[in-house]
Amino acid sequence: MFEILDTIGTLVFAISGALTAMYKKLDLFGVYCIAFVTALGGGTIRDVMIGRTPVGWMLDIDYVFIITLGFLLSLIFNRYLERLRISLLLFDTIGLGVFTLIGLEKGLEFGLSPVICVILGTLTATFGGVVRDILCNEIPVLFRKEIYATLCIAGGILFFLLQEFAIPKEIISASVAVFIITLRLVAYKYNWSLPIGTVFVKK
Amino acid sequence: MFEILDTIGTLVFAISGALTAMYKKLDLFGVYCIAFVTALGGGTIRDVMIGRTPVGWMLDIDYVFIITLGFLLSLIFNRYLERLRISLLLFDTIGLGVFTLIGLEKGLEFGLSPVICVILGTLTATFGGVVRDILCNEIPVLFRKEIYATLCIAGGILFFLLQEFAIPKEIISASVAVFIITLRLVAYKYNWSLPIGTVFVKK
Amino acid sequence: MFEILDTIGTLVFAISGALTAMYKKLDLFGVYCIAFVTALGGGTIRDVMIGRTPVGWMLDIDYVFIITLGFLLSLIFNRYLERLRISLLLFDTIGLGVFTLIGLEKGLEFGLSPVICVILGTLTATFGGVVRDILCNEIPVLFRKEIYATLCIAGGILFFLLQEFAIPKEIISASVAVFIITLRLVAYKYNWSLPIGTVFVKK
Repeated sequence: MFEILDTIGTLVFAISGALTAMYKKLDLFGVYCIAFVTALGGGTIRDVMIGRTPVGWMLDIDYVFIITLGFLLSLIFNRYLERLRISLLLFDTIGLGVFTLIGLEKGLEFGLSPVICVILGTLTATFGGVVRDILCNEIPVLFRKEIYATLCIAGGILFFLLQEFAIPKEIISASVAVFIITLRLVAYKYNWSLPIGTVFVKK
Repeated sequence: MFEILDTIGTLVFAISGALTAMYKKLDLFGVYCIAFVTALGGGTIRDVMIGRTPVGWMLDIDYVFIITLGFLLSLIFNRYLERLRISLLLFDTIGLGVFTLIGLEKGLEFGLSPVICVILGTLTATFGGVVRDILCNEIPVLFRKEIYATLCIAGGILFFLLQEFAIPKEIISASVAVFIITLRLVAYKYNWSLPIGTVFVKK
Repeated sequence: MFEILDTIGTLVFAISGALTAMYKKLDLFGVYCIAFVTALGGGTIRDVMIGRTPVGWMLDIDYVFIITLGFLLSLIFNRYLERLRISLLLFDTIGLGVFTLIGLEKGLEFGLSPVICVILGTLTATFGGVVRDILCNEIPVLFRKEIYATLCIAGGILFFLLQEFAIPKEIISASVAVFIITLRLVAYKYNWSLPIGTVFVKK
């Protein structure tokens, strides 16, 4: 189950990267690279910072194939993918929830404290997009719009709160994922966003 | 003493990052992230490159709290911090001196040669700002203005020159920090800067 | 022989970085930094991701000297280097071939699969330029023009195809390098480039 969700998340993140790169009129190699870093960038930064090397995707060739599939789908169905925006949003949101969980668990595996685990979960889920935006010469959308990362942080906090009770690990993980996914969809529907940083002083 | 200076340096670097991010109209999460990478980016890159993982701040939760404090101070006192520019410059300069020393010492700990240690000292002190500028979609100010990094290099060379004499380690460290801090303030006062790279050919 | 080619590659990559930085009107420190990351950025990212730390150039001080030489040559001969564009292209192409091979071999050393080795070869040869462009606030030229990276991938595939036959290692390496170098020069002459990513849908 978890592996399938991870695969879906990776695939959709790759498609989101490829579409951004096409929009920027990059060449085929550029589109492939951006798909790659969008899907695997967050996990790569996490692995490098905690010392889990060679980084995860180097030891499981499937990731390269999934990204190649996402790349090909984007090339071929480019025009139709625009119309599938709502479906893609759903999958992207699944990726968000699953990647947060993966990051949290890698942090625990390395014996890191809850605060650091929450940071790692958020980073895993969101920094692929940050690297994508930097490579495309944009200020990362993550820092400007939507409450994307805030949901990962909230999910991470929920994860550790639930640990306090005698709840089976699988149920905790599922609850956190469902929590992040639901909140993200609600946030999208009502167009929630964080205030900009100067909100407290500008009258 | 050293820990206090490290704390001050981290705090002020976080504030400098937060102010830059607010100026760029990022949202609250963006401001927090930029504060974080400005304060810890240099040390993170250093640790990752020398293989000191999990990187330093993951093992000492205090850093996260210091940065959160810097973030909150920036949000609340934003307007007044502008007027404190001179005090902030002083603290920023303390950070510069202390972070250079920390980088030098991590290099020695890992048995690296003096040239590499000087590079690591400079990187620790300055690359947080480089990452901040990249995330804000600017050419790093470090590469364009002021002699900021040059002072770290000079301080690093002084550090190794003083090792040649029978001077206690604490006095060497203090001298290097004072040297960097003094020179930086003088450089600021007289508006010193490095010539641009084409100076030798443009007539 | 190989060491000489590695040295030439590093030197020319450093010069290419320095010239780009001068064109962007960075100061002397900025020019030096960009020369550094252009020459060593690809290998650094590779080493960090496979866990080969401290990264390669920290253990061989010669790299710092070669880059310093490239930096000085660029400063002094800046004006004449423009006229040497064809010679520089040749050296740059040698760097491309040699760095690809180095990346491939580091991957094999770490027991990684052929697909990952090809990725590492390409990354070693090309991501110094990507970091250069990001630091100079440009969308990486690698993602937009020429078939630069595609040749590294092709060379990497050839490398593994030749492994299937009883060919001495040295000859395989030489063939791959010659293959990449020749194809790159042909590509340059005929101005080959990859189609942009939307080619399949735009009529």
